[in-house]
Amino acid sequence: MTSQSSPSTIEEVARRAGVSRSTVSRVLNGVATVDPKMRRAVDEAVRATGYVPNLAARSLVTRRTNSVALVISEPASGSAGAEFLQRIFSDPYFGRVTAGAQQVLRATGVHLVVVPADREAHDFVLSYLRQGHVDGVLFLSGGDEHGLPHALHEMNVPVVLSHQPTTALPVSWVDADQAIGGRLAAEHLARLGRRRAVVLAGPPEMRAARERLAGFRAGAAEGGIEVTVEHGDFTARSGAAGARVVLVEHADADAVFAVNDLMAEAAARVLQDGGRRVPDDVAVVGFDDSATATEATPPLTTVRQPVEDMAGEMARLLLERIRTPDQPPRGVMFTPTLVVRETA
Amino acid sequence: MTSQSSPSTIEEVARRAGVSRSTVSRVLNGVATVDPKMRRAVDEAVRATGYVPNLAARSLVTRRTNSVALVISEPASGSAGAEFLQRIFSDPYFGRVTAGAQQVLRATGVHLVVVPADREAHDFVLSYLRQGHVDGVLFLSGGDEHGLPHALHEMNVPVVLSHQPTTALPVSWVDADQAIGGRLAAEHLARLGRRRAVVLAGPPEMRAARERLAGFRAGAAEGGIEVTVEHGDFTARSGAAGARVVLVEHADADAVFAVNDLMAEAAARVLQDGGRRVPDDVAVVGFDDSATATEATPPLTTVRQPVEDMAGEMARLLLERIRTPDQPPRGVMFTPTLVVRETA
Repeated sequence: MTSQSSPSTIEEVARRAGVSRSTVSRVLNGVATVDPKMRRAVDEAVRATGYVPNLAARSLVTRRTNSVALVISEPASGSAGAEFLQRIFSDPYFGRVTAGAQQVLRATGVHLVVVPADREAHDFVLSYLRQGHVDGVLFLSGGDEHGLPHALHEMNVPVVLSHQPTTALPVSWVDADQAIGGRLAAEHLARLGRRRAVVLAGPPEMRAARERLAGFRAGAAEGGIEVTVEHGDFTARSGAAGARVVLVEHADADAVFAVNDLMAEAAARVLQDGGRRVPDDVAVVGFDDSATATEATPPLTTVRQPVEDMAGEMARLLLERIRTPDQPPRGVMFTPTLVVRETA
Repeated sequence: MTSQSSPSTIEEVARRAGVSRSTVSRVLNGVATVDPKMRRAVDEAVRATGYVPNLAARSLVTRRTNSVALVISEPASGSAGAEFLQRIFSDPYFGRVTAGAQQVLRATGVHLVVVPADREAHDFVLSYLRQGHVDGVLFLSGGDEHGLPHALHEMNVPVVLSHQPTTALPVSWVDADQAIGGRLAAEHLARLGRRRAVVLAGPPEMRAARERLAGFRAGAAEGGIEVTVEHGDFTARSGAAGARVVLVEHADADAVFAVNDLMAEAAARVLQDGGRRVPDDVAVVGFDDSATATEATPPLTTVRQPVEDMAGEMARLLLERIRTPDQPPRGVMFTPTLVVRETA
């Protein structure tokens, strides 16, 4: 390895590897189509020469980093620090989003980094994103307006939102119709003849949660179902707590609709431990159709969002935006479907 | 906003905000000690001028990005793509690691990005890390040797490992003595008079899992406990599957040791559903002391790793390495402790 004081050049690497300068560049940029033998030769030459690719010099020309950030964001009213991270690393939903985006990006050689943005970190994360570390941002949130997407847009950072913006922000977005999802759950319970439902809702300040509840209320009103609401925070713990309230305070409830599968699964368990048969005594419907739904005992009836497809679409829209910044922004709305399994 | 064809300069931003060039730079770099009024003035000036900070030009001087990557890695024998992401986003362990590292890094104004590296993505992730997007790497894995840490070291990318390397790799690391953790569990069960234990082990190719099992075996041998092993993969699903094998094939088992809390919690549930009292008939011990342990019914007896502290120490060692690259590498070994709750 050469000394740190006289950095090697890409030409030295190419000479040593016996390949062209552009082949070295393609290997360093992770282009998938390079011949494996050449790749190994370049790797060995890089190690032998101690070459450190000069991203800075490259970026001066292209201004591209070939990487994008998946920002997982909480609104200002949400959780912070360790509590927030515990939540996102306990919910398979976020794994599905990351997988869906990653699949599309990797196929084009673009790197994905995950950036958690709890409520205390908005300014800090913005300072990272505005510095040009990434070519664009996939912005994942509960759909509530807060400053980050606006600020990114104003700073000319390409951004695609995981929700339809409520204000006239000219950026692309991908969303699923949350209200229709809630309605599907209510209509199914009405068809089953259920009359008294408890909704294990999300935080009132989170828009996606509000819309699922509103859609459920609308469908329940038409179907003649009485609705009571207990608010939780999308964690299994809050689903279990909600179900304990059902056992004590709503003993006549014959249905539970939880706004995500984690809450539904935990609730079904507590109801069963409390002596209720699911679905005979109490029907349970979740939301998401994550692994939690299929692995639950019994498997959950749930509202399916095509999360991987939605995240893949976000990635495609972002790549488009990065490559052709002058195209007008687009919104893509998916429609949820009901997946009937055993709990309702 | 000015047109894209004539980019604004930092001097224009400073002039418009009425502050010095270095204050603009401090705001853009997310330094926490800037007066909020000045920060707002700079933010407004950046938006008004459409200034895009030129990371590239900055990096040519400092070669610093003020960010580090937390790489969550699987060995070449591990899982890939969506399956891998599902696992890490279902295990609070990874949230604890991220939180511990983030706390130390944020206090010094350094950004953290999370980079998943499933078994198919090692070369691709390496191509990202070698390009200078980050100043250094926190490398999280099960402790098995694979090429990434070596390659990073050879490319002069500062790296700190989440495990003690088995080869003479001169990089810093932080680890917990996994074998002692396993031994603590066995010794506790022996003290309770248990005689026939089933270990719900991890993948045999994952070193941390092997060491927990080996430590348990050593303690069990001394304590007169017979040991049977069922291998899983750290998911709740595999813990449940292992417990079903216990019910059918090891009906006389009076203890279960699972190599993480997710498996232990799922196993305790299946055992209870199968008519076993926990701990009266079967004692259950987990590993990690994550939120899963405290939230389980009944709460889990488990082996505690101080995961947040360990991740914080990794971050401190990495910052040290970035700032003073000539210091010799250091290893920091933590000792697990037993936390006795209700399942054993």
